[in-house]
Amino acid sequence: MTKPALLLWTENMSRLLGDVLDERFDVIRLWQSPDPDATITARARDIVATLTVKEPFDAAMLDRLPALRLIVVPGAGYEAVDVAAARARGIVVANAGDTHSSDVADHAVALTLAAVQRLPELDRWVRDGQWAAKGYPARRRGMSGERFGIVGLGGIGTAIARRLAPFGGEIAWWGPRDRPADWPRLPSLIELARWSTALIVAARGDSIGLVDRYVIEAVGRDGLIVNISRGAVIDEDALVAALREGQLGHAALDVFADEPTPPSRWRDVPNVLLSPHSGSLTHEAMARLRESAIRNLTTVLDGGPVVNEVTA
Amino acid sequence: MTKPALLLWTENMSRLLGDVLDERFDVIRLWQSPDPDATITARARDIVATLTVKEPFDAAMLDRLPALRLIVVPGAGYEAVDVAAARARGIVVANAGDTHSSDVADHAVALTLAAVQRLPELDRWVRDGQWAAKGYPARRRGMSGERFGIVGLGGIGTAIARRLAPFGGEIAWWGPRDRPADWPRLPSLIELARWSTALIVAARGDSIGLVDRYVIEAVGRDGLIVNISRGAVIDEDALVAALREGQLGHAALDVFADEPTPPSRWRDVPNVLLSPHSGSLTHEAMARLRESAIRNLTTVLDGGPVVNEVTA
Repeated sequence: MTKPALLLWTENMSRLLGDVLDERFDVIRLWQSPDPDATITARARDIVATLTVKEPFDAAMLDRLPALRLIVVPGAGYEAVDVAAARARGIVVANAGDTHSSDVADHAVALTLAAVQRLPELDRWVRDGQWAAKGYPARRRGMSGERFGIVGLGGIGTAIARRLAPFGGEIAWWGPRDRPADWPRLPSLIELARWSTALIVAARGDSIGLVDRYVIEAVGRDGLIVNISRGAVIDEDALVAALREGQLGHAALDVFADEPTPPSRWRDVPNVLLSPHSGSLTHEAMARLRESAIRNLTTVLDGGPVVNEVTA
Repeated sequence: MTKPALLLWTENMSRLLGDVLDERFDVIRLWQSPDPDATITARARDIVATLTVKEPFDAAMLDRLPALRLIVVPGAGYEAVDVAAARARGIVVANAGDTHSSDVADHAVALTLAAVQRLPELDRWVRDGQWAAKGYPARRRGMSGERFGIVGLGGIGTAIARRLAPFGGEIAWWGPRDRPADWPRLPSLIELARWSTALIVAARGDSIGLVDRYVIEAVGRDGLIVNISRGAVIDEDALVAALREGQLGHAALDVFADEPTPPSRWRDVPNVLLSPHSGSLTHEAMARLRESAIRNLTTVLDGGPVVNEVTA
């Protein structure tokens, strides 16, 4: 009897899982195929499970894979998957839940503090000899004077708020659904942006274009925008334009419209701190992502419980 | 009747106070004098008060100023003042107490997180095109796996620990005197250094050379040292050598043996984040330093209460 097939799209996925699944599955390593599209067509009736972060599982792709029963997203954002279409076909979708929220929140707060405290500029001030030539740099606003606005108070947003609380600034949030929280929810994103000195984007990855030019300009010329969600949540062209024109004070970005983001895009953009989508790039988070993916891949197809099932 | 004289040594001090004291005092602005030493001698019998951060008030200087009754230190570290010698002469010494501890702690934690999360390297990884060429950078240890060792659990050290607590790593401290605290005190500095993945120096400024090469090497090749206390607390030559030789992983420094530190000193030193002694360089902290200095200068000489008197 042939083994069921597990479809992996990228070497990153294979690296994450290792080879423990080769015994149970016929693992299709699509990046090794000379003609990936033909491989998918040829193996369509064997493929019962797959991992995806970015590869789109819309209705058309789902129709190509009639044997598919499980889609595992090794991360939080499942915006690549049409969850309703998958469920309508009896396909289980599972993500990594909150397993890596703490690591992403750590990174978000590190980026926020580095930008608020102007660490890149301070480092340059010393290295370029400005300290010796001109004395101390300009005084900054203290953290206790900051107003942190969190867009999306899910697992990551909540973890960010908890970490920022001891610094003494104010915290508020906005998200499309109200929920009980220790911090006030403002009535709209634009009001949160106007109120904030630092807007931290932890929204769901499918909120495409949520942070548009009006929101960016509402944060304003003294303000900061931090994004650790998905690049597409912000209108990146508008963000770049606002930074260039001084309509936005500064930005710290871990995610981008296209990844890897081309360095040329940022060469002449002032006041921006960049990070290569590495919020969850810790040994601990990777081990948890791996464990959660493997658990679902080894039990769900036998009717076992789903960990972190995505239902909407 | 002539006004009593207030001796100011640097333009920074004059900028901090503004001119509100000119009515009450004859303010001697020593940096404007063609011969500062002669000015001190000529005015020795009028000078009743002074501000100092770095200018040494040892017994010899105190003997030169027989009318001196008040020394104000607009900051935390009063290592320039021989407090016992001053008190023996009936001179009151006052610092800024904890008025700026929160701002310095904010800065310390920002430096710590930036270094632990490798933000400078990540920014370079994107800008140099490594993300596009080589993929993601190496995985890091998560914050929850960090062990933060705080040297000196005074106002600033305590504020640092409170801010780090929600990140989930372990926290311990060492200081020469035990005190009740929410975190364990290890028996010695060298044991704290061996235990720590990140050693954060918040010791008193008079702890010259406390962090010597043995302590630095105990933190080790994967470890981080952060200093927001005084440059002289660390053997800076040993720190530079350890960074060059890979005996210490990385460092984040707000204070230096000589300030401003010459840029050439750091040109070829790897893995070091620099900041120009700007922990308290916020509008809020400066306003509080100013207020506390002015309050002492306007009341103590009339027998009023001393705010933040230093007694040892």
